[in-house]
Amino acid sequence: MLQGLMQDDFQLTIPAIARRLQSCYSDREIVTLREDGPDHVTYEAVGERVSRLARALDRLGVAPGERVGTFAWNNQRHFELYLAVPSVGAVLHTVNVRLFPEQIVYIINHAEDRVVFVDDSLVPVLAPLVDQIVGVRHWVVMGDGPIPEGLPGAISYEDLLADAGEGVYDFPEIDERQAASLCYTSGTTGNPKGVLYSHRSIALHSTTMCMADGLGLSASDRLLAIVPMFHVNAWGLPYSAALTGATLLMPGPHLQGEPLARLIEIEEATLIAGVPTVLSGLLEHVEQHGGDVSSVRGGICGGAAVTRGLMEGYERHGISILQAWGMTETAPLLTIARPATGLDGEEAWADRLTAGRLSPWVEARIAGDDGAEPHDGEATGEVEVRGPWVASAYFGDESQSDKFNGGWLRTGDIAAIDERGFVRLTDRAKDLIKSGGEWISSVELENELACHPSVREAAVIAMPDERWSERPLACVVLEDGHTPAPKVLRDHLAPSFARWQLPSSFAFIDEVPKTSVGKFDKKVLRAQLAEDELEIASVEPVKS
Amino acid sequence: MLQGLMQDDFQLTIPAIARRLQSCYSDREIVTLREDGPDHVTYEAVGERVSRLARALDRLGVAPGERVGTFAWNNQRHFELYLAVPSVGAVLHTVNVRLFPEQIVYIINHAEDRVVFVDDSLVPVLAPLVDQIVGVRHWVVMGDGPIPEGLPGAISYEDLLADAGEGVYDFPEIDERQAASLCYTSGTTGNPKGVLYSHRSIALHSTTMCMADGLGLSASDRLLAIVPMFHVNAWGLPYSAALTGATLLMPGPHLQGEPLARLIEIEEATLIAGVPTVLSGLLEHVEQHGGDVSSVRGGICGGAAVTRGLMEGYERHGISILQAWGMTETAPLLTIARPATGLDGEEAWADRLTAGRLSPWVEARIAGDDGAEPHDGEATGEVEVRGPWVASAYFGDESQSDKFNGGWLRTGDIAAIDERGFVRLTDRAKDLIKSGGEWISSVELENELACHPSVREAAVIAMPDERWSERPLACVVLEDGHTPAPKVLRDHLAPSFARWQLPSSFAFIDEVPKTSVGKFDKKVLRAQLAEDELEIASVEPVKS
Repeated sequence: MLQGLMQDDFQLTIPAIARRLQSCYSDREIVTLREDGPDHVTYEAVGERVSRLARALDRLGVAPGERVGTFAWNNQRHFELYLAVPSVGAVLHTVNVRLFPEQIVYIINHAEDRVVFVDDSLVPVLAPLVDQIVGVRHWVVMGDGPIPEGLPGAISYEDLLADAGEGVYDFPEIDERQAASLCYTSGTTGNPKGVLYSHRSIALHSTTMCMADGLGLSASDRLLAIVPMFHVNAWGLPYSAALTGATLLMPGPHLQGEPLARLIEIEEATLIAGVPTVLSGLLEHVEQHGGDVSSVRGGICGGAAVTRGLMEGYERHGISILQAWGMTETAPLLTIARPATGLDGEEAWADRLTAGRLSPWVEARIAGDDGAEPHDGEATGEVEVRGPWVASAYFGDESQSDKFNGGWLRTGDIAAIDERGFVRLTDRAKDLIKSGGEWISSVELENELACHPSVREAAVIAMPDERWSERPLACVVLEDGHTPAPKVLRDHLAPSFARWQLPSSFAFIDEVPKTSVGKFDKKVLRAQLAEDELEIASVEPVKS
Repeated sequence: MLQGLMQDDFQLTIPAIARRLQSCYSDREIVTLREDGPDHVTYEAVGERVSRLARALDRLGVAPGERVGTFAWNNQRHFELYLAVPSVGAVLHTVNVRLFPEQIVYIINHAEDRVVFVDDSLVPVLAPLVDQIVGVRHWVVMGDGPIPEGLPGAISYEDLLADAGEGVYDFPEIDERQAASLCYTSGTTGNPKGVLYSHRSIALHSTTMCMADGLGLSASDRLLAIVPMFHVNAWGLPYSAALTGATLLMPGPHLQGEPLARLIEIEEATLIAGVPTVLSGLLEHVEQHGGDVSSVRGGICGGAAVTRGLMEGYERHGISILQAWGMTETAPLLTIARPATGLDGEEAWADRLTAGRLSPWVEARIAGDDGAEPHDGEATGEVEVRGPWVASAYFGDESQSDKFNGGWLRTGDIAAIDERGFVRLTDRAKDLIKSGGEWISSVELENELACHPSVREAAVIAMPDERWSERPLACVVLEDGHTPAPKVLRDHLAPSFARWQLPSSFAFIDEVPKTSVGKFDKKVLRAQLAEDELEIASVEPVKS
């Protein structure tokens, strides 16, 4: 085969991103919100600290391929680890600080982390678990004050950097297929599973997401990255920012509406990125207490379905929120719901309420009974995806090999794809309700219920039924002071669904249980249903 | 070494771009300007024709790695070849239709083209050369009418497609490092040299150029690609358009101001891309004859230095033209001169008048006498570049191996790079003038001369001088009706240059000789000087 005569051995790696940050964007900034306000540092200063950190990792004996854990919020030091750890050839393992204690222990042990970097404010979370964690040689604590008690032999991050000496660190040659970072899923069943990102996958994801129809990130942006750095590389935003010279605004642990609104106002954020619950809290704060968010032109929201209500709320402030879809196994972004060219009004909304259009380089198919279903916007089935930032296996876990279907990842999401590459999710495979031999989409019911003015949020689960096998149960959180009868809600649904799809059972609950990353945790609702802990109000089924 | 567990074997190839065009953008269009007006066709229809063309290539016996030549303007059929030829594993060799006859013969023979696709309007250019061309098995003529005489056994492109049968062609597996296309330099010395692009290099170039700070191309754009498809893949624009779903507007052979302005107005182009001479002709037409170009928001201009006058002319129409720098050996774009964030007025102009900021993934250094010079905006030397779309060798030509310096390409351009990654070109290495042991930049003199209202264009070359070794000779084309004395022009230069840098010799010429792609061809001027064919007016040298 005739090979091209280009520099095809130029490696797409994180050290190349680090070099760019230093050679092109030394005057741009990274801003961390601290207790006493935003703290500014230039990329130039960060670059020097990354060199120090790289030398410090060498001194700590971190070998190529070894895992280095982080247990930290979104802040400057975490960003330094994002660049330095993969650049010396080690693997950055971002531990989700919101996991349950036994999961934290499990993943640090499973990843075989050798050094763990911990925010001082999070030491109290880790300290009680230390006895169950094996193999960590060094605990490094990141903060400005004295090191809190609780981690054996803990080293100060700032001391480590101060001792590491000056000068540019010469990163080793790295193959783009080497492992760069590791993140565990926060799945609702079984143990968390590790996704081991290569340098190549991160490089291509970060570059593609900066395309104009992606995030459209540019050097003039001031990006508020609310999505946590301990979860799927914060959607790759730290790397995209370093590639483009965007100023990166980091909220630290301050994820409530008030501090976020303040940070946006002081720092004139232009883009925001976060999960629906956090963006919802921010919007609520701004609507109730005011705050100048006029600098913001748009945002990306994902991790769970984004309601039209949330997007319309932001539109009132001139902010266009686009929903995105993806998962830990896909680095994570697969789609962004930017409406197709030339559409406005309800047509544009129809596009915005999908999961979005497939990103360049991501390919998808719909598994059907006989091969792939057509991409006609109607046929549904489990979505399978492939592309340069899609996982091919889990780290140290062969049990899930059926997820990886001959080069395609089974997403577990049920969807239709239209002829324009827009993906319309109808359900998680395991959230479908099978009633009388037909499938009912819980997500579609939830979305329509959420449009009712009395409904704050709604989760629909399957309820065992003798006659129909399963029937939908709508678990609804009402707005304060609203008390609609179940029939009112069912009547609200009626125009949009077949009669047999309508729920006749409703449970009014205080809140929908959530996973550590804010997704609906339906397994808790199912357990409550099984234990008769849900108070169910029934309406007469609609007669056929 | 620990490898990542991602789909790192997903190949970045042109068939993946072709699949995207069909699965996401079937309703977008490609528009070719024909004699009787713009001709529209959807990407869906193009996709079907690409499948037919792929089958036709198989039938013609095109083997993997074999070269398939094109001799064509920017039009829909050429676009089909851009997708189909690399996707079947063959190599698209775009022959520059403006080369001198002996060069055309040389490169078709050197590339060993086996099939050549020719626009019917260009058959008269090729026909007289056929006897000197060896190894071409099939000539395929593209057009709507009968096949012109002159190519032995010529086949009609449309007949070929009609006979190729329906249905989606299943592209073979292609490694991203395989050769995809071939383009020869139009250098001003020696034989043209072939650059053999890999799929990977094209994929990464096309993706990166769509970043917001690159071309910022989006699905809502209507891109007028004036830069020829026979030259460096038309800056990769056809592939970027297919990746993003931008509508592609193709002028065919109609590169004069009038038809371009008409195409922009009818088709509401949003972006334009071309070399300075063509954009200059377009501007001149619009300023003299009017025409609605209000749909255009911006453009990219490269291939030669872009004057402030040209950019200011477009600004008057609300069009922001950014200059870009690159070469055949770099696929081609290395930089885009988008001013740094927060600058306006003269500061922004200072950035816009550089070659631009290095693209993500492109790295550069300045060769100095003792290693690399600092990137301080002052130190100059030959720029060397590396990156995934930089050539590593010439095709079938070992003679130029000194161009490739241990993984870095010697660009032949002299420049300074500043701490923000902006490249300021001062000269081609071979265009510097060495006077009294010091270097004089011909480009800086030319740029300043071009700012004088009486000067249409100016080329400065070295003139042998007994005392100083070389002195600058300014070859100047005057605006109609202007007759400034040489001293007036020298006085115009005086505030910006050291006295010893000022030319004291001027030649007033009718036009600056140009290469086939419109660059100043100084070797012709040097030959005219050597043959005493230039009439030189001297002014008294400035006394020190």
